[in-house]
Amino acid sequence: MEEKLNELKALLSEVYDLEHVAALLHWDQSTYMPKGGVSARGRQLAMLEKLAHEKMVDPKMGRLLDALVPYEESLPDTSDDASLIRVARRKFEKASRVPASFMAEFSTHKAKTYHVWTEARPANDFSMVQPYLEKTLEYSRKLADYFPGYEHIADPLIDYSDEGMKASTLRKLFADLRKELVPLVQAVTEQPPVDDSVLKQHYPEKDQWSFGVQVMEALGYDFNRGRQDKTHHPFMTKFSLGDVRITTRFKENDLSEALFSSIHEAGHAMYEQGIRMEYEGTPLAGGTSSGVHESQSRLWENIVGRSRPFWEHFYPKLQRRFPEQLKDVSLDTFHRAINKVQPSLIRTDADELTYNLHVMIRFDLELALLEGKLAVKDLPEAWRERYTSDLGVTPPDDRDGVLQDVHWHADTIGGVFQGYTIGNILSAQYYDAALNTHPEIPDQIRQGEFTALRGWLTENIYRHGSKFTTEELTKRATGSSLSIDPYVRYLKRKFGELYL
Amino acid sequence: MEEKLNELKALLSEVYDLEHVAALLHWDQSTYMPKGGVSARGRQLAMLEKLAHEKMVDPKMGRLLDALVPYEESLPDTSDDASLIRVARRKFEKASRVPASFMAEFSTHKAKTYHVWTEARPANDFSMVQPYLEKTLEYSRKLADYFPGYEHIADPLIDYSDEGMKASTLRKLFADLRKELVPLVQAVTEQPPVDDSVLKQHYPEKDQWSFGVQVMEALGYDFNRGRQDKTHHPFMTKFSLGDVRITTRFKENDLSEALFSSIHEAGHAMYEQGIRMEYEGTPLAGGTSSGVHESQSRLWENIVGRSRPFWEHFYPKLQRRFPEQLKDVSLDTFHRAINKVQPSLIRTDADELTYNLHVMIRFDLELALLEGKLAVKDLPEAWRERYTSDLGVTPPDDRDGVLQDVHWHADTIGGVFQGYTIGNILSAQYYDAALNTHPEIPDQIRQGEFTALRGWLTENIYRHGSKFTTEELTKRATGSSLSIDPYVRYLKRKFGELYL
Repeated sequence: MEEKLNELKALLSEVYDLEHVAALLHWDQSTYMPKGGVSARGRQLAMLEKLAHEKMVDPKMGRLLDALVPYEESLPDTSDDASLIRVARRKFEKASRVPASFMAEFSTHKAKTYHVWTEARPANDFSMVQPYLEKTLEYSRKLADYFPGYEHIADPLIDYSDEGMKASTLRKLFADLRKELVPLVQAVTEQPPVDDSVLKQHYPEKDQWSFGVQVMEALGYDFNRGRQDKTHHPFMTKFSLGDVRITTRFKENDLSEALFSSIHEAGHAMYEQGIRMEYEGTPLAGGTSSGVHESQSRLWENIVGRSRPFWEHFYPKLQRRFPEQLKDVSLDTFHRAINKVQPSLIRTDADELTYNLHVMIRFDLELALLEGKLAVKDLPEAWRERYTSDLGVTPPDDRDGVLQDVHWHADTIGGVFQGYTIGNILSAQYYDAALNTHPEIPDQIRQGEFTALRGWLTENIYRHGSKFTTEELTKRATGSSLSIDPYVRYLKRKFGELYL
Repeated sequence: MEEKLNELKALLSEVYDLEHVAALLHWDQSTYMPKGGVSARGRQLAMLEKLAHEKMVDPKMGRLLDALVPYEESLPDTSDDASLIRVARRKFEKASRVPASFMAEFSTHKAKTYHVWTEARPANDFSMVQPYLEKTLEYSRKLADYFPGYEHIADPLIDYSDEGMKASTLRKLFADLRKELVPLVQAVTEQPPVDDSVLKQHYPEKDQWSFGVQVMEALGYDFNRGRQDKTHHPFMTKFSLGDVRITTRFKENDLSEALFSSIHEAGHAMYEQGIRMEYEGTPLAGGTSSGVHESQSRLWENIVGRSRPFWEHFYPKLQRRFPEQLKDVSLDTFHRAINKVQPSLIRTDADELTYNLHVMIRFDLELALLEGKLAVKDLPEAWRERYTSDLGVTPPDDRDGVLQDVHWHADTIGGVFQGYTIGNILSAQYYDAALNTHPEIPDQIRQGEFTALRGWLTENIYRHGSKFTTEELTKRATGSSLSIDPYVRYLKRKFGELYL
């Protein structure tokens, strides 16, 4: 059996390496690649994707997985070997359902769509992407149909990034959250608006960079196993458990841009860096779902990084870094500025409180598209209506409306946005559980110390990689299923104290 | 036939992409990778090398090449299709001779040896690498033996980088060159030594960087299809014909370090950037040999970059960039400083005139090792003897002696060093031929214009990629075989004017 298991690991390791080599090509494309490299890069990525897929669905993989059933059954579910075989089998079965030719065709289409979007958005011209999105919708439905027996057509798509989640569960969850959010947003926005002009002074990039690095090092992001580079749209990426990188972007007239984006990506990266090294080269060596991943970026960015104790420690340091800009600005003023709530047009710029309303609009619209209740051509109008009714702001054009996010233009329609709100919900649920075990966490944070929190997260979330599903992991870590209660309590307390 | 040709091209394109993806991984490793990435990167590179080899020796490749024989024979030798098939067949046959298991084993050994060398050199401890080099010598001999029928055991190794060249030809060529070089070096070094202290002032990196970029842009290196990054040991690398990158390193107390290294690498890069785009994805899309490649780096670095006309244009600009350092330094003083001749210990720091003596020492020693006339354990002593007799300098230790170059510690023993001197010889031969056609070249250079020279090189060298062998290319471009005469004339004239 050991021999079969080693054969399986060797095959899986090749798939893992092909996927992570592709990640390096993506990283390079988004950071340093000259524009002359574009067309070959697309070809190289398509080839790596094809090779990884071929290796994943290799009949040898299937035979090994079959041969290992008795061994797997002889082990406790939570053993590493049983988990590896189980997770590998899920991956094999998913990959085997979808013909390679479909994947290649869809990939090419997505690359083309993305390219058109990069021109359509600045041109503010939805009609450029419309035919592409119509085709993407077809492909997305077809992809779902390779997994018959679903309850909702979005379910197989959601399952790709948030395994086990269903449209029906999420609709209920989001509706419950919405019921709490809407009155809270309303109460806050009835207050006089917060003045965040202190953040909009001139902050030289060089000093922003070094302050950000200082913060991330304190949080526990390991620069020996990572690095930060500049890009247009920040992301975290991994080439191995020893090389987990983040990217950021700077606005010299907005201090919060790079700082919170860096903390956000460092949160993602610490999750990956915290996975047990023994899992390297296997499908266990990655975050378990997009929701859990987002819980880590949001926990560090918002629950920690926008908290009062955090800035009690870091604000004097920030003042020393930017004495001219901040010497006369009180901690209170700064803390309120970085927590300013204001319904706005752009999801990625949204505050903590209204952010989920942006996500819900997208989630509802993509379900409607998949269900056939909304046509692509009517999407811009539907978008405007929902922004007007939900957030009280009306996009003046499509550039800052339906064209703002890359997702639909570079991926499936359906199955992507839910992770952001699941992540927000989980961030508070995990933080609560950590606090139960370590009530000293806020005091540590006040000292610029994060060992208790990071220790709890490593022990309960990070080190497990993809061993457990979101549901299993959450139950083990917090004692209960995914629940909005801690998140709602957190928001009410925080914004109540700040605003009400 | 067209279908078969397209199938061949598709297969070759996958090999090409795998090789160039590996190049990106190497580039990243040498520029940005955090140290935590080391072990996975080795694994990833080994996998890509294995996949590329498997695809290259795929029986399908052999069948296609066989099927295409009649088509190839129906075409003129110089047609693109015939050349593609011919060059692909050479590559296929070479790759097929050597078992994949041997390649993998040797690769692993080379990686280990390299790692040991990185510790042995600073520790000045040849005994650390000795057992590894003994094994490398065995592997190198074994590799040669996969190509029976050679005249000299080094020939198959030389053939990998300088196809068609033989140890016997090179020995004769190098002996002829040596006969000219030795008295010239002697005559020059009898003169009072040149003062190059103006180059050793403080030159801030930032300003060196921007001046270097200005020079490379003027020469014709296309930054839209390339970029420059920092590394320890500068190199040129290519990920596609649209993405040809260079690296450099700075010494703030030595102006010549980065400047000439950048011009050197830009010379390599312009060769690759000048290849016809139609060859992208095929084995024609690369420089034809290490000698021709080096001819381009040395032509731009030395014949152009250290010439008087070049600095008549650029020196005033350099003075404006570094007014404090250079305002009182005449063009003459500067020009003599960058052409200072002084026998020294380190090949990569050697001047234009003594450089080839360094190469010849290595070439002779590696032939002796391969022939069994020299044992690895006696290499340090043989090295010291040759430096003393040939250059009149004796290495005080192995760090700056036999351990200085990475080559034997990261590659085969044999088949690598000859390219440097072939390149020097060819650089003058090509420049002479260009001058015959375009006598206006020096005047153009004096104006900071390089179109005539670059145009001639593109037309006669660059655009052909690997279509012709070094010998074919040189005959077509210059009307004669490889010859030392233009190079000797060039050196005598230049150093005669400067020194004698």
